[in-house]
Amino acid sequence: MSRPVFSPNVFANYPLDKAGHRRRDAAWLENAAADPRAMLAPLWRMQPFLMGAPRGPREIGWLGMHTRGALGNGPLVFLGEDDAGAPLFALQIPDRFDVADSPIADLGSFEDMRAAAAQLPAGDIAMLGCAKALFEWHARHGYCANCGEKTALVDAGWKRQCASCNAEHFPRVDPVVIMLAVHNDRCCMGRQKQFPPGMYSALAGFVEPGESLEEACARELFEEVGLRATSVRYHSSQPWPFPSSMMIGLIAEVDGDQVTLDKDEIDAAIWLTKEEARQALAGGLSRDGGRIWAPPPIAIAHHLVKAWAES
Amino acid sequence: MSRPVFSPNVFANYPLDKAGHRRRDAAWLENAAADPRAMLAPLWRMQPFLMGAPRGPREIGWLGMHTRGALGNGPLVFLGEDDAGAPLFALQIPDRFDVADSPIADLGSFEDMRAAAAQLPAGDIAMLGCAKALFEWHARHGYCANCGEKTALVDAGWKRQCASCNAEHFPRVDPVVIMLAVHNDRCCMGRQKQFPPGMYSALAGFVEPGESLEEACARELFEEVGLRATSVRYHSSQPWPFPSSMMIGLIAEVDGDQVTLDKDEIDAAIWLTKEEARQALAGGLSRDGGRIWAPPPIAIAHHLVKAWAES
Repeated sequence: MSRPVFSPNVFANYPLDKAGHRRRDAAWLENAAADPRAMLAPLWRMQPFLMGAPRGPREIGWLGMHTRGALGNGPLVFLGEDDAGAPLFALQIPDRFDVADSPIADLGSFEDMRAAAAQLPAGDIAMLGCAKALFEWHARHGYCANCGEKTALVDAGWKRQCASCNAEHFPRVDPVVIMLAVHNDRCCMGRQKQFPPGMYSALAGFVEPGESLEEACARELFEEVGLRATSVRYHSSQPWPFPSSMMIGLIAEVDGDQVTLDKDEIDAAIWLTKEEARQALAGGLSRDGGRIWAPPPIAIAHHLVKAWAES
Repeated sequence: MSRPVFSPNVFANYPLDKAGHRRRDAAWLENAAADPRAMLAPLWRMQPFLMGAPRGPREIGWLGMHTRGALGNGPLVFLGEDDAGAPLFALQIPDRFDVADSPIADLGSFEDMRAAAAQLPAGDIAMLGCAKALFEWHARHGYCANCGEKTALVDAGWKRQCASCNAEHFPRVDPVVIMLAVHNDRCCMGRQKQFPPGMYSALAGFVEPGESLEEACARELFEEVGLRATSVRYHSSQPWPFPSSMMIGLIAEVDGDQVTLDKDEIDAAIWLTKEEARQALAGGLSRDGGRIWAPPPIAIAHHLVKAWAES
């Protein structure tokens, strides 16, 4: 089945049928796991297992379902069915499991998720990001927020259930607005202290209860750099599994270019013309003896800046 | 301070400065609560307290801060400062408190939130919706999902903190896509069994980990009515405090008009022309001896259908 590409963003464009209704059926799920075509993608310490030459093309290190026991028997989540109907799962290998002394030690390697994103096809990284988001959620939600008792993984990993008070808990998806402020054909980018030297990005913040996406954007721009948004335009969205964000990319017209930094959040802000922004995206812009650069394509900020700079 | 209106939606367009940084400072917060201009808006059983004639103009029943003790001493959250700098709070009166026998019994009445939305100015209902979303979250998150111990309300009600494992918990904001499927100048609306007779609305569903907003839209359309989205356009967003959703309104082109209903979710679906949609919005469309109508302006679905039907 071919799918339309809705988003330029890494971690989007999931390639499977998630079978949202069928996965809730325990008997169906058991059959899926027993399907001879079923495979699992292991993650260890939130790092995916990749096969293929380190400098050549890499791919998810899919393993047979029977390896689960030998890999520590950790939580298993159902990712979906591929176009041929094969059921695919992800396995979380326990953090303390000694992978170097396991049967898969020589088959591949565990890699940082961001590094993997730069090496894998779009569909592969989308599946791994989804698996990471689910495992991060399970790892931090072992207890019921309503009554304090332990909860259990159910519905193939897409829900947790409390046996004590019967509360159902669904994975968190935390909306974050990320916005490029623009004024008179220049855009504003900021940097946090912990960014690599020279890197500037779009500003961002979590959406709070009681505000629209557009208000969250205006509030964050005013809080972080003292700019006032007058209009806000949607660009695209990106699932971002660090640990459970949904990035919503916006372009915001602001009514001036006088910035007032909130130094707790933003260390510096700069204004770039479209030509300067294109240079920052392409590898670096020289300014004041230093080099200014924008985030790589893994980040939605890259695509936001690119869309504006090429418009 | 005048604010640009970014959204046509009820519960959006919050009128206060939420003072996101200052509210974390306990000394600042204590001063704010002691400010002689400070007031609180009570909610009881998630219903806001309104003053004014039942058939005349109504407004939030603001009370002095000293009433907190006499109203059961429930959780207090900071809403923000109004344009004159007055600090405004919301108070959750305990469910079991006898409001009929309290000092405020004759001053106003507690009203259903949806009914209040139809009676109050936009800024008032935005504040009350935010208060409800926060109180709903506090009510269901008294325990730490990470370790099971009790958590405490901190940061003026915008965070919960676990003293045992030190985990910080922030209010949930659950993104929901709500989409009008359109094809050949007709739109598709569906109804759930529990809807009032004759009401049809846009389809909707929660965003899951590992998918963009556009993919969530395409997945839900396919799951619920068997339609395949080919392009997705953003319309607007709406904070929706039932209990903690962020509605994201989309218009989706689909590649055909053959619907296949998921009867667990959708009881019936219809296709309307723009003229028919305008009639459904305006009070009802006669069809097959019955009356078909669209949700009122409190719902983002109303504005989605209107935007398409008037385009």
